Amino acid sequence: MKKTHGIAILGFGVVGGGVAKLVTDNKEELKKYTGKEIEIVRILDLRDFPDSPFASVITHDYSDVLSDERVDTVIEVMGGSHPAYEYTMAALKAGKNVVSSNKEVVANYGDEFVKAAKEAGVSYRFEAAVGGGIPVISPMLFSLRQNRMTEVRGILNGTTNYILTKMFTFGDSFESALADAQAKGYAERNPDADVLGIDASRKIAILSALGFDKLVNVNEIPTEGITGIRAEDVRAAESIGHSIKLLGRCIARENADPFIMVAPFLLPSDSPLAGVCGVYNAVEVLAEPLGNVMFYGQGAGAGATASAVVGDLIPIIAYDNYNPIVPGFNKTDYSPKAAFGEFKAKSYVALPEGSEECVRKVFGEVTPISSCGEYAFITEAMSEADFASRIEKLGVKPLSRIRFA
Amino acid sequence: MKKTHGIAILGFGVVGGGVAKLVTDNKEELKKYTGKEIEIVRILDLRDFPDSPFASVITHDYSDVLSDERVDTVIEVMGGSHPAYEYTMAALKAGKNVVSSNKEVVANYGDEFVKAAKEAGVSYRFEAAVGGGIPVISPMLFSLRQNRMTEVRGILNGTTNYILTKMFTFGDSFESALADAQAKGYAERNPDADVLGIDASRKIAILSALGFDKLVNVNEIPTEGITGIRAEDVRAAESIGHSIKLLGRCIARENADPFIMVAPFLLPSDSPLAGVCGVYNAVEVLAEPLGNVMFYGQGAGAGATASAVVGDLIPIIAYDNYNPIVPGFNKTDYSPKAAFGEFKAKSYVALPEGSEECVRKVFGEVTPISSCGEYAFITEAMSEADFASRIEKLGVKPLSRIRFA
Repeated sequence: MKKTHGIAILGFGVVGGGVAKLVTDNKEELKKYTGKEIEIVRILDLRDFPDSPFASVITHDYSDVLSDERVDTVIEVMGGSHPAYEYTMAALKAGKNVVSSNKEVVANYGDEFVKAAKEAGVSYRFEAAVGGGIPVISPMLFSLRQNRMTEVRGILNGTTNYILTKMFTFGDSFESALADAQAKGYAERNPDADVLGIDASRKIAILSALGFDKLVNVNEIPTEGITGIRAEDVRAAESIGHSIKLLGRCIARENADPFIMVAPFLLPSDSPLAGVCGVYNAVEVLAEPLGNVMFYGQGAGAGATASAVVGDLIPIIAYDNYNPIVPGFNKTDYSPKAAFGEFKAKSYVALPEGSEECVRKVFGEVTPISSCGEYAFITEAMSEADFASRIEKLGVKPLSRIRFA
Repeated sequence: MKKTHGIAILGFGVVGGGVAKLVTDNKEELKKYTGKEIEIVRILDLRDFPDSPFASVITHDYSDVLSDERVDTVIEVMGGSHPAYEYTMAALKAGKNVVSSNKEVVANYGDEFVKAAKEAGVSYRFEAAVGGGIPVISPMLFSLRQNRMTEVRGILNGTTNYILTKMFTFGDSFESALADAQAKGYAERNPDADVLGIDASRKIAILSALGFDKLVNVNEIPTEGITGIRAEDVRAAESIGHSIKLLGRCIARENADPFIMVAPFLLPSDSPLAGVCGVYNAVEVLAEPLGNVMFYGQGAGAGATASAVVGDLIPIIAYDNYNPIVPGFNKTDYSPKAAFGEFKAKSYVALPEGSEECVRKVFGEVTPISSCGEYAFITEAMSEADFASRIEKLGVKPLSRIRFA
């Protein structure tokens, strides 16, 4: 049997560099647990790294990776759907295991990868795709499977959680909190994927597949970001003992596919997810007979992500012919968007001053919230469709509307 | 290949009943994931259960379990060290897998079980022994292994956390909070194992083994319970924005075995563990390069514990010859008690009024805390040995002393 396990790293950026460092720094420990030495055989990147200790294994040509028989596992940490998709499929078909941190490609093509891995008798794993270094995929795959999931929900994006935390702690506006996040390197120059909820929608798609056995089209997930959250909303939330968090949610229904969505939600300040601040992520699983469990930690960063990637690698190396059961990645035509009209929630609504009379006519009795210079209130629980038709009747565009979780 | 996987349940109490129910209720789902039907072949209990649907498989004689070739896995949910130890060893030697929820026997004999399982080529697993339904053993075994642990710490006992939460929320005395916990069924009539920290010491022994590769003698873990926590201490903690939690802690040291202890600690109210209230448990892992992660959920109860037990069972059934690497369970003579003198912490100390002058002489400048009718202050960080010698010099027995985490 081979004494070494060869890996190729696709993408030598922050995460790829973190993986190379972790594997190198902990060589002896890893050998103790897996029985083999991990050898970095190839690193694919467009750039050269003449001063890196890994300079000699850098290649610009993916066929070098594919044809190299020393490569047992391909670590795909490039991000983006293409060519990550093509590279992953080619690796699996060539009989190489693949470990990925790329939520976009997992959410879009996870079903094909799982199938291809099974056919080739190799492993496809992606712990780092959700929640960075937090073990959440593995527990859902291995430790919680015997439960009936009621809901899986999470703070899945550290950038938006940092921005919301800043708004709550310092009363910042969204714009000022975003600028601060950009200055600190937590938000990209073009922050759309984060602040519009796109990143979170990919992650909840993956969690939904694991919890409910169906992989939906990410574009069919109703997705609202946090760009509309105002300092006034933060003050109103605080006045009723609530916090606002951008949540990905997947909620079981009786005899129907689950609701899946990404949106800001109002949470009681003493709920476990409300206490998750700054760039931290957390995933809460509500299940029978388990009750609720929460996984919490750093959702991004070189170290945390590298930890998750190498954690996936260990059983692949340690167990021969390790081909974990990955249920759930069955592509479905079910559209959470189409079902969303039936989703029921209470809402906080802010309107221009002077709307009280109209609101009473259209919404009946509501619970007012004191708000300076505007009229804010909480509705009864009602469906999205019902809410939308009442707002249309009202004829006034809300300044804000945030659902209660 | 066999189409069924036979299990025997040792102990048909709350947990054993929960396992039987979960396996029966989710028969189809479990078959889908594991490929086999789980059959409850034997249930060992001293009692008869004539009205139970499982009446026909009840036995009072363990040799029925051992000699029954249909039994592939023994589920040990009896509690206590004996005869759980003897039954477990006999099952492993007979080539049967063992899944346990019994922290006492895991903490005392985990090393022997892991060795015997390895020799027999079977599995020994114990997710339910720490944190009830929270996946924490598995993530430490499989997902976090590639990290260097800095500290593993947790709220490992729901009873004491309920009592402390009650004291903080309602200003209860320890006695009154304990009586309430007993009335609600959260505390036993003899609450010693919980309130004296013994239960938590077993769990931190197990977590220490997983995180630091050495299983210490549980009796050698310095263990303080919560019986000395007074309503005055709760008020003092609140006045400085802190919470008091009973923590099991295992803290890495440079070139030395880790500090291991169970004691109440003062935590800043906004720290993740401080937010864990009521009967909930949580385990926080601080590691490099991961950062920190926390696992949170219900630490006890039939449903949660059964979920963990069946979660252990799934890979045993699904993977042929599944024999997970369980490193860490190497018995050591190292005594955390002997090392504890070197452990450094700041302390909150409450003394009778009029001690100010003596304190200044012995402790130098301290930070006073306003406290009605007594003199309370915070010391600098100092070793246990140093603290003890100063208290001896002081000649006054503290009303309370609680370390800062």
